[in-house]
Amino acid sequence: MKRFESNVQANQERFLGELQEFCRKPSIIAQGIGIEETAEWVCDRLRRAGFESKVVAVEGGAPVVYGEIGSGDKTLMMYNHYDVQPPEPLELWDSGPFEAKIRAGRVWARGVSDNKGPLMARVQAIEAYQQAVGELPIRIKWVIEGEEEIGSPNLGRFVDENRELLEGADACLWEGGGRDGAGRPVISLGMKGIAYLGLSVSGAGSDLHSMNGAIVGNPAWRLIWALASLKDENENISVDGLMDYVAEPTEEEWAFIRRIPFDEEESKRDFGITSFLKGATGTDVVKQLLYDPTCTVCGILTGYTGPGPKTVLPNEASAKVDFRLVPDLNPELVLRLVREHLDRRGFTDVNVELLAQLWPYRSPVEHPWVDASIAVARDVFGAEPVVYPSSAGGGPMYQLCGTFGIPGIAGGGAGNPNGNLHAPNENIYVEDYMRTIRYTGRLIDALGSL
Amino acid sequence: MKRFESNVQANQERFLGELQEFCRKPSIIAQGIGIEETAEWVCDRLRRAGFESKVVAVEGGAPVVYGEIGSGDKTLMMYNHYDVQPPEPLELWDSGPFEAKIRAGRVWARGVSDNKGPLMARVQAIEAYQQAVGELPIRIKWVIEGEEEIGSPNLGRFVDENRELLEGADACLWEGGGRDGAGRPVISLGMKGIAYLGLSVSGAGSDLHSMNGAIVGNPAWRLIWALASLKDENENISVDGLMDYVAEPTEEEWAFIRRIPFDEEESKRDFGITSFLKGATGTDVVKQLLYDPTCTVCGILTGYTGPGPKTVLPNEASAKVDFRLVPDLNPELVLRLVREHLDRRGFTDVNVELLAQLWPYRSPVEHPWVDASIAVARDVFGAEPVVYPSSAGGGPMYQLCGTFGIPGIAGGGAGNPNGNLHAPNENIYVEDYMRTIRYTGRLIDALGSL
Repeated sequence: MKRFESNVQANQERFLGELQEFCRKPSIIAQGIGIEETAEWVCDRLRRAGFESKVVAVEGGAPVVYGEIGSGDKTLMMYNHYDVQPPEPLELWDSGPFEAKIRAGRVWARGVSDNKGPLMARVQAIEAYQQAVGELPIRIKWVIEGEEEIGSPNLGRFVDENRELLEGADACLWEGGGRDGAGRPVISLGMKGIAYLGLSVSGAGSDLHSMNGAIVGNPAWRLIWALASLKDENENISVDGLMDYVAEPTEEEWAFIRRIPFDEEESKRDFGITSFLKGATGTDVVKQLLYDPTCTVCGILTGYTGPGPKTVLPNEASAKVDFRLVPDLNPELVLRLVREHLDRRGFTDVNVELLAQLWPYRSPVEHPWVDASIAVARDVFGAEPVVYPSSAGGGPMYQLCGTFGIPGIAGGGAGNPNGNLHAPNENIYVEDYMRTIRYTGRLIDALGSL
Repeated sequence: MKRFESNVQANQERFLGELQEFCRKPSIIAQGIGIEETAEWVCDRLRRAGFESKVVAVEGGAPVVYGEIGSGDKTLMMYNHYDVQPPEPLELWDSGPFEAKIRAGRVWARGVSDNKGPLMARVQAIEAYQQAVGELPIRIKWVIEGEEEIGSPNLGRFVDENRELLEGADACLWEGGGRDGAGRPVISLGMKGIAYLGLSVSGAGSDLHSMNGAIVGNPAWRLIWALASLKDENENISVDGLMDYVAEPTEEEWAFIRRIPFDEEESKRDFGITSFLKGATGTDVVKQLLYDPTCTVCGILTGYTGPGPKTVLPNEASAKVDFRLVPDLNPELVLRLVREHLDRRGFTDVNVELLAQLWPYRSPVEHPWVDASIAVARDVFGAEPVVYPSSAGGGPMYQLCGTFGIPGIAGGGAGNPNGNLHAPNENIYVEDYMRTIRYTGRLIDALGSL
């Protein structure tokens, strides 16, 4: 791998120039900007790196770029996305979000960390590997979607329609990861799911004077009582039957949890809180974050919310509730459990709809490909990796990894703790970018030797 | 009283012209417009009608106009207000809110019904009585405040500072009243009070990603649980001890309640509902409206309330809750009971403040002055009066009537059921205005003969 390392080193300037070129192509899925063109560009770039690649149309959605390369009896699936978040508010950027300037050792651009940097680094790594070492020792099946930033609504359909193409992988190298503030590489082996519900209740024909509160029903009260039945004052989710689907971590998983560095006081300071939920301390905080499902009220709106008093009896009330899901929960199940729970308590007047959804997925934590991804990260970053047996966040890992029952390894990304993902001044360090290229090439090599 | 009636009849045009002049003077307390000038104008008008009148400054508030006239051992207090609601939204008025146009038998102006019409009618009635009959057979003490539309925050102070002036009345003729759709005069013998509370809870230092819902407390949940403890799913107020202060109507009061005409189906249609609270029907609906305290959520705001999903853990949550009070509740008592109730349940993190307040007041229903006011109404309107032993609405009746322990009789006003109080196109019928003048003169005469 020495020749690989020198090749990468020698090409740094070209690699960065190409990353800038990629970042200068806006591909904002939420605004429908540049999607098809960017997909074609990415497909072409894969082809130039030796991939057999194609742009796969998905009915009603953004196209998926699919590429294959390499040979052998081992197959690594890879997942990335070419779409980015909207760049607004523009005035908060120090340089244009699609200028992709290099400044103070970092590349600044919308999507450079999430996810164009890691994507391009993987192309360049594979290209460099072939130039420096030769043919890839494993097969690669690469799925690059264009709707990640709006919740991957059509990835499941793509998988269903292209099952034969995708089958047979041993593991999936997911997007994401990077390093923490102490320089430790971060790897996640699973993701929570989401059931994001909208609840609403209607009352009288119009808002009324609040003096009528003695004789006319109030949708705000109906909503409050319905919500209060979903989670109790001890912070336990009380939706009938929901917790039956939730397993505690295994001993194996506890071992991973205990190894995650966690500075309790610093974390409290960062959040601006004096204690964690349920009075948790130490490792239990980490366990809750990664292994507990959540039921979070994200918003409520009803009646008058301006300054001072207004004596109104509202006729509409609505709330948004985000359930973060762990196995064996899933969005449709949660919707059904909540509906039945409310009906059982007479809340048939409370309308419930699913506004966003993701299935949870958790990888096996003891697996030779997981071990290899950790070992390579240790080597490339020169620090002990922080391995999350599951991420607190969500992503469409289930659609790819769950469908085929393979580990999902989110690691080797170029992120840094001040990378401003989804925010103005998104950035990656040049150094982290080069590490991502090296990580990818070395992981491929290591997997070939397993 | 024949000469009084003909005098009133003969002066109709002049009376209406003067009412228009009064309505053309904006006196919008919420916007601080025209208050002092209008107080001076009203004081002067009382003086010209024979009153000994003065403008009484109230520290930090709008001045009160106070007038006395007449003699004898019987004294009628009267209460009106010269301030009006803001006229906005202006574009919904068919003629300017301060033009006071007469059109199709009605006078259209902001404040013409609430409360400048009834106020001017009383001046003109007293003036006409003197011209046609002679000196008043009773004494009158008239309090005309300028802050009714913002909840009379300083009326209590005025009463405290002018106790000797106000003492010794037998009853108080309140503002309000008018006629219902069937032409029946409406009289109310009491008013509910208000404790309008603002509740708020704070959480982390800022809004967070909702994935942190597993480890960081959510002020929205705290607020929901706190609110849910105030009123149960059977629509019963469950604030510890609150209902101990609430008495059921006496047999005497039930007799009044049963006499109130109530069209259940029409009322449901008007509200756009299919059933009343607690499944009440018939007379029980009227009883609830007039005699039950309320606990109404008027508004809640927390987190993200726009379209679609946003995965946010809010760090602020607030609600507005309107308690309508019946004797023996009062605002300070309710604030204390709610505070203690929440503290007892560990909701010390829920901040509670009183945003608006009014004490409830209920008049004796069997009283010769009440009887006289009903009899005169029957006579002047030519229909059986509808007598509410207490109003569902609120007003500062307690400050004047409660302080001196005298009946408060809200009747003889010029309102009609489509009078658009507090709304665009506020109006009174010319015919109703003239009836208010006749009602006032005849009531004074009747009280003199008691």
